[in-house]
Amino acid sequence: MILTLAGGVGAARFLDGLTRVFPPGEVYVLGNTADDTEIYGLHISPDLDTVMYTLAGLANPVEGWGIHNDTFESLAALGRLGEEVWFRLGDRDLATHIFRSNQLRAGSSLSTITAQMAKQLGVRSSVVPMSDDPIRTIVYTKHGDLAFQTYFVRRRAKDRVLGVTFQGALESRPAPGVLKAIRGAAGIVFCPSNPLISVGPILAVPGIRAAIAGRKCPSVAISPIVGGQAIKGPAARMMKTMGMEVSALGVARIYQELVDVLVIDTVDADLAPAIEKLGMKVVVTNTMMTGLPVKKALARTVVKALQKFRA
Amino acid sequence: MILTLAGGVGAARFLDGLTRVFPPGEVYVLGNTADDTEIYGLHISPDLDTVMYTLAGLANPVEGWGIHNDTFESLAALGRLGEEVWFRLGDRDLATHIFRSNQLRAGSSLSTITAQMAKQLGVRSSVVPMSDDPIRTIVYTKHGDLAFQTYFVRRRAKDRVLGVTFQGALESRPAPGVLKAIRGAAGIVFCPSNPLISVGPILAVPGIRAAIAGRKCPSVAISPIVGGQAIKGPAARMMKTMGMEVSALGVARIYQELVDVLVIDTVDADLAPAIEKLGMKVVVTNTMMTGLPVKKALARTVVKALQKFRA
Repeated sequence: MILTLAGGVGAARFLDGLTRVFPPGEVYVLGNTADDTEIYGLHISPDLDTVMYTLAGLANPVEGWGIHNDTFESLAALGRLGEEVWFRLGDRDLATHIFRSNQLRAGSSLSTITAQMAKQLGVRSSVVPMSDDPIRTIVYTKHGDLAFQTYFVRRRAKDRVLGVTFQGALESRPAPGVLKAIRGAAGIVFCPSNPLISVGPILAVPGIRAAIAGRKCPSVAISPIVGGQAIKGPAARMMKTMGMEVSALGVARIYQELVDVLVIDTVDADLAPAIEKLGMKVVVTNTMMTGLPVKKALARTVVKALQKFRA
Repeated sequence: MILTLAGGVGAARFLDGLTRVFPPGEVYVLGNTADDTEIYGLHISPDLDTVMYTLAGLANPVEGWGIHNDTFESLAALGRLGEEVWFRLGDRDLATHIFRSNQLRAGSSLSTITAQMAKQLGVRSSVVPMSDDPIRTIVYTKHGDLAFQTYFVRRRAKDRVLGVTFQGALESRPAPGVLKAIRGAAGIVFCPSNPLISVGPILAVPGIRAAIAGRKCPSVAISPIVGGQAIKGPAARMMKTMGMEVSALGVARIYQELVDVLVIDTVDADLAPAIEKLGMKVVVTNTMMTGLPVKKALARTVVKALQKFRA
């Protein structure tokens, strides 16, 4: 079984490829929930949903998030009732949040509900939240401490990030089965997600980082930074304003001790020697997942790297 | 100000006419909430919504309930997640329930939320729930005690009704301003709604029946039973199985002491003498609201009856 650490869109794209070249039933997705938020009293888990929709074949291929061809009648009607509508919830997407919120209030856990929904939608991989306990990314800015979705969606990630914290992480426990899955994995993959705010919170759940650090299987990361730019999202700007080097080398430094092989893009090939000095192997390939062929090729490269490192 | 006691579709049709022949800002709608239910954790107030949508010009002209041209994407997606979907909630309609449920959980009262929504939708009349406390119609049948929507929508009102009760009514209080509105009304109108399960629960809220019985203004009811049949819904069957006469005379008996004038359909003209013996005046007219002209004519007849009785 391959265990993957996953944020949102970047991870989902990689997982789309991985589950096409590797048995999907043997892929375990450990998902970030620190982006979760409550809107209109509904619990939204953007990263889990992005992964779930993608693996169910429902994802919006352009934006990466949400459901393909979704409509926005409910949202428009909420606007007419005076609600703010900056978080774009489609009608079909809303069903997920209504279902989840109802089950949560009935006492079910996020991991149980996520497994139930994924199964209903025909997803064969395990999609598991990092924790059933509430963990929330707070972004420190000059304009105050912002909830992640306020920073990211509402304010379009325009604020200079002074720091981040994962509220509730210290008191949280990994979701049931997570530590066992890490220990039993034949390979660990860090998806090309924001290392600070997508993978960071997963590693902040007590026990998870230690379990990965103590792994007996190979671990591969795909750099989400290509040519000094984040492929998607605010990762580059966040790394920069937090004093990190915005490059695959910067990513390597964050993942030191946790990753055996870093997959970097061909445009970053010159960084390989510096990354190798950190004690990692480097694989250079095309990581720009512009279409299905590249997704699958990247996934094959990662699977091969896992096998090669083991041998 | 005219104060109206209102159930769902029949009441909404009448109110549609009334607010076209009488200043809508001077119409006060006292609505039934005993049909309220919770679905997917969302609080649904079918009768209040039917009135609100109708007065906002949003109602579905065929069914009478729901929103015109609504779509059902969320409901279909909830079905794919394994939920039961026998209660037809449209996407735009869902926004109402999401908004209301969120505000209720935040501590707002049903009357405050209803007023807020009606205002946002441009409704100029006051739409007021009978109570902010939970009151629920329970229908006794051979198959057990059924929540009203289970009896009515899910089981299509097919069970023989042995009796009804309004759970919570005894402990409830009228919503703020209701008793004052009754006392200050220039006229009271019982809309053509089910007297047992639409108007019945309103009268079961302690204080409301007494306030209407002690009225200093005229009170007019429109019989929802025409030619021994209910125009809509299970009223006729319920009256019959509960041992009541299914006719305008049966309606008159239920409303004795509370109503000064009963408006009955021309097909029931022969019942006038028996109704008058109960101490009511009778007005005979066309009450089949098949279109806007009839709705307006009926409303004018009712307003005239109120004025005439006063004089």
